[in-house]
Amino acid sequence: MASATPLLTDELDIVIPTIRNLDFLEMWRPFLQPYHLIIVQDGDPTKTIKVPDGFDYELYNRNDINRILGPRSSCISFKDSACRCFGYMVSKKKYIFTIDDDCFVATDPSGKPVNALEQHIKNILSPSTPFFFNTLYDPFRDGADFVRGYPFSLREGVPTAVSHGLWLNIPDYDAPTQLVKPLERNTRFVDAVLTIPKGTLFPMCGMNLAFDRDLIGPAMYFGLMGDGQPIGRYDDMWAGWCTKVITDHLGLGVKTGLPYIYHSKASNPFVNLRKEYKGIFWQEEIIPFFQSAVLPKDCTTVQACYIELSKQVKEKLSKVDPYFDKLADAMVTWIEAWDELNPNGPGAKLANGKAK
Amino acid sequence: MASATPLLTDELDIVIPTIRNLDFLEMWRPFLQPYHLIIVQDGDPTKTIKVPDGFDYELYNRNDINRILGPRSSCISFKDSACRCFGYMVSKKKYIFTIDDDCFVATDPSGKPVNALEQHIKNILSPSTPFFFNTLYDPFRDGADFVRGYPFSLREGVPTAVSHGLWLNIPDYDAPTQLVKPLERNTRFVDAVLTIPKGTLFPMCGMNLAFDRDLIGPAMYFGLMGDGQPIGRYDDMWAGWCTKVITDHLGLGVKTGLPYIYHSKASNPFVNLRKEYKGIFWQEEIIPFFQSAVLPKDCTTVQACYIELSKQVKEKLSKVDPYFDKLADAMVTWIEAWDELNPNGPGAKLANGKAK
Repeated sequence: MASATPLLTDELDIVIPTIRNLDFLEMWRPFLQPYHLIIVQDGDPTKTIKVPDGFDYELYNRNDINRILGPRSSCISFKDSACRCFGYMVSKKKYIFTIDDDCFVATDPSGKPVNALEQHIKNILSPSTPFFFNTLYDPFRDGADFVRGYPFSLREGVPTAVSHGLWLNIPDYDAPTQLVKPLERNTRFVDAVLTIPKGTLFPMCGMNLAFDRDLIGPAMYFGLMGDGQPIGRYDDMWAGWCTKVITDHLGLGVKTGLPYIYHSKASNPFVNLRKEYKGIFWQEEIIPFFQSAVLPKDCTTVQACYIELSKQVKEKLSKVDPYFDKLADAMVTWIEAWDELNPNGPGAKLANGKAK
Repeated sequence: MASATPLLTDELDIVIPTIRNLDFLEMWRPFLQPYHLIIVQDGDPTKTIKVPDGFDYELYNRNDINRILGPRSSCISFKDSACRCFGYMVSKKKYIFTIDDDCFVATDPSGKPVNALEQHIKNILSPSTPFFFNTLYDPFRDGADFVRGYPFSLREGVPTAVSHGLWLNIPDYDAPTQLVKPLERNTRFVDAVLTIPKGTLFPMCGMNLAFDRDLIGPAMYFGLMGDGQPIGRYDDMWAGWCTKVITDHLGLGVKTGLPYIYHSKASNPFVNLRKEYKGIFWQEEIIPFFQSAVLPKDCTTVQACYIELSKQVKEKLSKVDPYFDKLADAMVTWIEAWDELNPNGPGAKLANGKAK
């Protein structure tokens, strides 16, 4: 991609789960001000979130979510950043970039500020290569290509649905690792983007994430976390496992690597351990479940795949904990709500086009 | 791995397919002089290869190969760097590092010369993680770890069989890409090592490669290339496909990324095209073959896996070209020769131990 990266200002929304840090948007202003922001307030709806002048935004608190979704609002987490997925649902744009408010602008090894969004756009607008590994990483980057021995029939690649960015400074560790390595910082700037191969799951972090809403939006459900739920900090993981199984099934790609953000603040490992500890057990059964999940061929839309996955969750994970029974139901509610708010989604549009 | 990397001078051989370039060993002297070299002369046996003073080496030319292997020498390529695999067979060491004579010492972004062998040793002595992708790359490197959401049961990893290093300057492109992009140079130093996930094939390049001979040696057959063969430049690819299928089956790992070498000289793209063009067609059938190859559970040694693969090659690829029938036979000959020269291989040792 030697040409300039398009800004996509009319096609991309920024989704932020609350803003506690006033510096956050000031720091990102040079890069994010041209975009529309969707802020989903994760806590007490009576508190006001202050957005600096000059930003174009809409703000949703719990009352708004309840009003818009009615009884279906039960599928959106409360007092947890998992609520951000409501923003994916109400967006009308093709692309989403979601970022946490403790993520600041990173600098590359030359000291230049990293325009994270520009790199995400590059990642998403160029194809993925999930069927064979390219040892020089993303063959679509400037100065790179497919290496000797890469089959020519696979060089067109597939559409990229997800761009997963990384974090300098505070790494995204679980509570046990945080407790064991409180001082570890990520200082290694790895100048690479790569496709996660088909059939391989990965831990998707929601801190610095972009995706094509038209291609994969309905799979980006961040589950039931936080208030009233037995678990937290698995919202993005859940979305990542579901998303990867569905992108693999539909022939779409997931990239990881650049861009970096600077993750400024380590969350409290003791609080995290309380949120996570059930997940630490459960993931030992959840991951084999997703690794062996097979979607039938007639699931040709993300929604159909997701409903099918919800059935398999109910059938195979409910025995791990009754929570998964509730989560499977919430997955269905999420899709119902998505379809209600997006009646003219890509599938519907196509159907209308055919009917004419 | 915070402790110093062991040198393994008594456990590692350097295998080099001929040396045309007198500067080559001088440049590597600080790093390679402590090791034993095995040079396998790929061309005219009457020509002498000059090795600078101070290096401990053994040199094999075609006459030596014929003498040592007798009729089985037919499995070793002539006038092609694929002959290097003879060096793997005659080595008595646990580890092999193989490097081409147009590969010089690279410098890292700080300008420091890269000790490629030291990085290969780090890669090979630390486990691989083929079952789940770690977004911060090799979790066993200093300053890295497993990220949130990585199952704890998978954090021990598996033994690493192969460390695949990369190339700055001249990238390892096929002839068509060389022709289209004659001036492209790889200047991107990606500071990463990663495990190639289970089930994913990759184009293994033999320019800068290390492996554990005890774990995977018999799969590192570089096939029939060069003189009298219809194809060239697929020797390392063939070894890579076989190796990856077998490491996946046996629960071993393959890493790629660091270390870099500086690849000084682009080979002639016209000559390369003549060598490669059949491979460009064939790989479209070979890769799906390896992607779907399944080894039976009772194949518990590399040799057994390799013999089984040779049967599947004969059965499924001979229809692509009679060459594969010949190659399948050569695969069997290779294993016979390997076992003859290595009567006390790991399997044999175990059997002896049990018999006592």
